[in-house]
Amino acid sequence: MDVLSSPNDVRCLVRRRRASGHLIGVVPTMGALHEGHLSLIRAARAECDTVVTTIFVNPTQFGPDEDFERYPRTPEADLELCREAGTSIVFIPNVDDMYTPDAATTVTVSGITRVFEGASRPTHFDGVTTVVAKLFHITEPDRAYFGQKDYQQQLVIRKMASDLNWPVTIVTCPVVRDADGLALSSRNRYLTDSQRRQALVLNQALTTAAEQALAGHRPWQIENTLTETLKHADGIRPDYAAVVDPDTLQSVPDDCRRAVALAAVWVGSTRLIDNRLLTFPET
Amino acid sequence: MDVLSSPNDVRCLVRRRRASGHLIGVVPTMGALHEGHLSLIRAARAECDTVVTTIFVNPTQFGPDEDFERYPRTPEADLELCREAGTSIVFIPNVDDMYTPDAATTVTVSGITRVFEGASRPTHFDGVTTVVAKLFHITEPDRAYFGQKDYQQQLVIRKMASDLNWPVTIVTCPVVRDADGLALSSRNRYLTDSQRRQALVLNQALTTAAEQALAGHRPWQIENTLTETLKHADGIRPDYAAVVDPDTLQSVPDDCRRAVALAAVWVGSTRLIDNRLLTFPET
Repeated sequence: MDVLSSPNDVRCLVRRRRASGHLIGVVPTMGALHEGHLSLIRAARAECDTVVTTIFVNPTQFGPDEDFERYPRTPEADLELCREAGTSIVFIPNVDDMYTPDAATTVTVSGITRVFEGASRPTHFDGVTTVVAKLFHITEPDRAYFGQKDYQQQLVIRKMASDLNWPVTIVTCPVVRDADGLALSSRNRYLTDSQRRQALVLNQALTTAAEQALAGHRPWQIENTLTETLKHADGIRPDYAAVVDPDTLQSVPDDCRRAVALAAVWVGSTRLIDNRLLTFPET
Repeated sequence: MDVLSSPNDVRCLVRRRRASGHLIGVVPTMGALHEGHLSLIRAARAECDTVVTTIFVNPTQFGPDEDFERYPRTPEADLELCREAGTSIVFIPNVDDMYTPDAATTVTVSGITRVFEGASRPTHFDGVTTVVAKLFHITEPDRAYFGQKDYQQQLVIRKMASDLNWPVTIVTCPVVRDADGLALSSRNRYLTDSQRRQALVLNQALTTAAEQALAGHRPWQIENTLTETLKHADGIRPDYAAVVDPDTLQSVPDDCRRAVALAAVWVGSTRLIDNRLLTFPET
């Protein structure tokens, strides 16, 4: 496994691999790796010849009052996990390797970035799309792997790639959960034991939403139940909860067949998100 | 010479060429080709194995009151000129091939896009950078060729490519002029004979600026002369005229060694731009 911090070194190495016929997969991460990330690396390993895992806590996707400074950084453990999961090349740049002081270019997706995570975190998705654009140009992947846990993010990346004719296939991998149902997140380590127990309501409420959809409840009923459940749960402050179109994140008609339930909650000073795809029976 | 309108067909063909070891050059144009464009194609031909010329009058870089509808379109002549100049592949898409109705992604360079052309044409450069981003992803060039005539544009493209770690070398080719000194432009064909004579002052004033710089005049003196000359010229309405830093387009100190003189003028309802790099003697 090669561990590199220079964009140019990564490009040269990836190009050598490609020249020898390798299919290239990239797994962009912010480090603090957990089983969710490892599932992405393993998926890439199964489909590609060379797997590039990028580890970069990208400052531009954090708001001024967010947790950039205290975001967990565990590089030694990350490298060991990368190796075990089958990474070929780790790209772990410093901020200076990624941004010059006079950097002035932004990739912006409008529309789907303005709601939910984008409404709560106004500059977040510009930071995400811009850094992913850079990572894609540095690693030139055939396939790029993202987790469904960040549902809106993978949708935004897909939109960016499609709108800009990017020669990359975006792969979305299922949410990985702990045994108690909590979706894995690097931010889970901020939770105290009692907060962690309180946070379980997020997955429980989304599970109920999926069951209600299968039972033929209408989207607005499911959204109401989800909202009320989170609103009245102990130790939880909901940021948003909604049942919307899985592609556009717009409201869905009463007779839709597919939707996504999205929710974000605060547990103390920690913000958690989760989601569930909903399938409705034919009416 | 292959003539293709589908982005996917172009990508497949270019990738086949690359797989056989070809260096790929791209020359993005809006058609209505003249010797300026042909000089770009010939430069690409001299340095690359496969030359892709793109012909696309990009609607998103025209303002609502600009000349998108009447912009000259001469596809048959363009194809013949492409062939003669050594183009391997012409990519000539329709608007529908390039933009889906729900396209939502924009590449924005801040700073240098806000002045001069960007001040006069507020949405222009977003349109340029976004379409060039798409063309780069479709054609995946090693080298891309732009004319110095659009000085600010090539600077914006360079900034975009550098900020986003694009694996492409931007090549800027010199302004090509008619025998009378007028910089070649597809918009020159809008000019009447007398307007064309009046337009010559643009190049003459820039030539004076270059001579003044070599003679040791200060940048502000040169800018004054340029502005006054254009202001008092017959049939000309200056939009802007300035002597600025060639990289940042910011104002220059009195003792600078390099600068660029930029000017835009209206001749009747036609807007023309031109520029000259200035070199100052050591003081």
